[in-house]
Amino acid sequence: MGIGVKVVPVKDGNPVVFGEFKSREARQTLGFYNHYDVQPPEPLDLWDFPPFEARVKDGKIFARGVDDNKGSLVARIEAVKALKAVYDGFPVNLKFFVEGEEEIGSPHLEYFVKENMDLLKADGYVWEGDGVDEQNRPNVSLGVKGILYLEFRAKGPKRDVHSSLAPIVPNPAWRLVWLLSSLKGADEKIRIPGWYDEVVTPTEKDIQLLKQAPFDEKADKEELGLTEYLGGVTGVEGQRVLRFSPTCNITGFEAGYTGPGSKTVLPSEAMVKVDFRLVEAQKPDVLFRRLKEYLYSQGFSDVAVIYHGGYEPAKTSPDDPFVIRILETAERVYGCKPVIWPTIAGTSPFYVIKNRMGIPVASVGGVGYPGSKVHAPNENVRIKDYVNSIKFTASLILSYRT
Amino acid sequence: MGIGVKVVPVKDGNPVVFGEFKSREARQTLGFYNHYDVQPPEPLDLWDFPPFEARVKDGKIFARGVDDNKGSLVARIEAVKALKAVYDGFPVNLKFFVEGEEEIGSPHLEYFVKENMDLLKADGYVWEGDGVDEQNRPNVSLGVKGILYLEFRAKGPKRDVHSSLAPIVPNPAWRLVWLLSSLKGADEKIRIPGWYDEVVTPTEKDIQLLKQAPFDEKADKEELGLTEYLGGVTGVEGQRVLRFSPTCNITGFEAGYTGPGSKTVLPSEAMVKVDFRLVEAQKPDVLFRRLKEYLYSQGFSDVAVIYHGGYEPAKTSPDDPFVIRILETAERVYGCKPVIWPTIAGTSPFYVIKNRMGIPVASVGGVGYPGSKVHAPNENVRIKDYVNSIKFTASLILSYRT
Repeated sequence: MGIGVKVVPVKDGNPVVFGEFKSREARQTLGFYNHYDVQPPEPLDLWDFPPFEARVKDGKIFARGVDDNKGSLVARIEAVKALKAVYDGFPVNLKFFVEGEEEIGSPHLEYFVKENMDLLKADGYVWEGDGVDEQNRPNVSLGVKGILYLEFRAKGPKRDVHSSLAPIVPNPAWRLVWLLSSLKGADEKIRIPGWYDEVVTPTEKDIQLLKQAPFDEKADKEELGLTEYLGGVTGVEGQRVLRFSPTCNITGFEAGYTGPGSKTVLPSEAMVKVDFRLVEAQKPDVLFRRLKEYLYSQGFSDVAVIYHGGYEPAKTSPDDPFVIRILETAERVYGCKPVIWPTIAGTSPFYVIKNRMGIPVASVGGVGYPGSKVHAPNENVRIKDYVNSIKFTASLILSYRT
Repeated sequence: MGIGVKVVPVKDGNPVVFGEFKSREARQTLGFYNHYDVQPPEPLDLWDFPPFEARVKDGKIFARGVDDNKGSLVARIEAVKALKAVYDGFPVNLKFFVEGEEEIGSPHLEYFVKENMDLLKADGYVWEGDGVDEQNRPNVSLGVKGILYLEFRAKGPKRDVHSSLAPIVPNPAWRLVWLLSSLKGADEKIRIPGWYDEVVTPTEKDIQLLKQAPFDEKADKEELGLTEYLGGVTGVEGQRVLRFSPTCNITGFEAGYTGPGSKTVLPSEAMVKVDFRLVEAQKPDVLFRRLKEYLYSQGFSDVAVIYHGGYEPAKTSPDDPFVIRILETAERVYGCKPVIWPTIAGTSPFYVIKNRMGIPVASVGGVGYPGSKVHAPNENVRIKDYVNSIKFTASLILSYRT
């Protein structure tokens, strides 16, 4: 299709596939970020079709990665193909930045961007893609949280011993309980000094967007099996807390005997995994340093801290001209106002483009819908959404005509 | 051998085997407590011999339960056989109280004793047996700690959810961390009001016995892989803390993702098991009630508390005439002063006899030695210790001659 393709090796990682489409008449460049790696298809017995054959049934395509994220990537390439069949030239240069490590936390992405700034330069990036909501309104995500993922390991006696020795033998599970209590209290406030120093209050515009966004709180609570959200938050306040609060979350804890009944043991080792979600403008490296200093000051230098990864949060202004262009395009293609999320509660490496290169980023126009089953068996997309995704990309490209 | 045997059914449990040997001329009765159940033999591949064949090699007998506790039981029966071959009558009545649920926490023992007080009545009970130490000195244990074994379960969302939801979804692992922190602080003090109310300070005699007892602290620390004991205690103070302190010990903690690397999950459930060792004169039912009231007052009524069992602590005075008789017998048979432990750090159901019936209890004259490998593969006893155990029992019986 005339897109120049380069496979750029990544040291100790999967290569980046880079595609570039240059236009003689264009002054601006539009970037697309996607990934070609997928989640493992297991458990296979819960799939109705083989996960790597892309079977079509009832207007849907079933395959691992068909939503996350190959469907959106292919829709974008199909848009180029469609436009080429009709037009001679393109009003904007295109860059396709496709990595292969998104599902394992993009461990080499920041370094890759730092080393390839000229290659990646553009005026705006459309991220993975999102999709439409229950009422077929397109979602537009302008921001993401960052993350700091840590593991703590404590050691006691050199092997599990009888619990009668508890008065004189340190228990590593207790060490971690006290460490965790020093990180966050029952008031849900993180106790590490300086943790909130860089946190930016949501703007009036952010809150206004939350007020406009539809959200079925009752259905969500039923889905989660909760009678109320944590702390009793509700409505726009619930959305604000969800999207604009830093978190300190225990993802896993393991120590000693966990089988049925009782066993009187004092464990040799204990392990806990914690993910901290970060909000604008927290930085994982700064916070990690503060956390380590704090733990040292609290007497926890006996506990090993393992760093599993960190992303900065990133957020594009809803008033950015690139965002305005996207919103107008989305409304034109989908025939309704898009739902604008100033930031999502989850994490994606927007920051490598937004923070490191100063380029606006938005996730929009993807093939997903609420029944996509991302990361799960029977992942699927609806063909009508796939077609709309192609139309959106084509329309966005044509929006650069002067 | 003329011992009248009854197999007494236990509702929902393994029967008690009761043996009685009545003597015309005797006024006193000597009781023996043993158990016929054993720990499972697994892992089988670590045994040098089949675990249930009692193979003899290098002056040792190898079998599951040969020390804990069948060896001591059989030695006591062999003593009766030997005495009968020599003497016409016995100077003391004998009772053999043999249960079959010791290794699972004697769940029906207290009820059985309550229902069979007349049957079990005696002037003193010799417990399971202990054995000799590194220098072949007989150990005599006069007391045990009690225990309260609990499990706490917290629930969050109805299934594991993405950790980005942490700002609005309660995390059950955090609930348990905060609950545990409210039970015990990093100063190792239990925070439940009234927990220490009934605790009795060790007597001067207790401390004197600890000072006399041999203890290789350096070897023990090496065995545990510790450079120092918890809190830096050492010497007699270490032994006092070990044997006379109540404990609150995490035996197991399980929540969320505990595999390699990172997974961003907020767990649906979390579970922790805790054993509390109790010292004279704490009572598990009283403490359990205080604990539940405390948790309620601290706002933890959302956490389920599961009771896995409780024993009272129990302690026989070193000045009791029954103990004096035992110590004299032990010195005569083993040819050296016995090592007297006023209480051990572990737990055994002494209390059903000592506290419920007011009968002195001591554990002494068993077949064990430091290499016995109790509860482990290649459990074994030395034949010479087995012979001494028979001699001890015979000598104790004869000590009742007037």
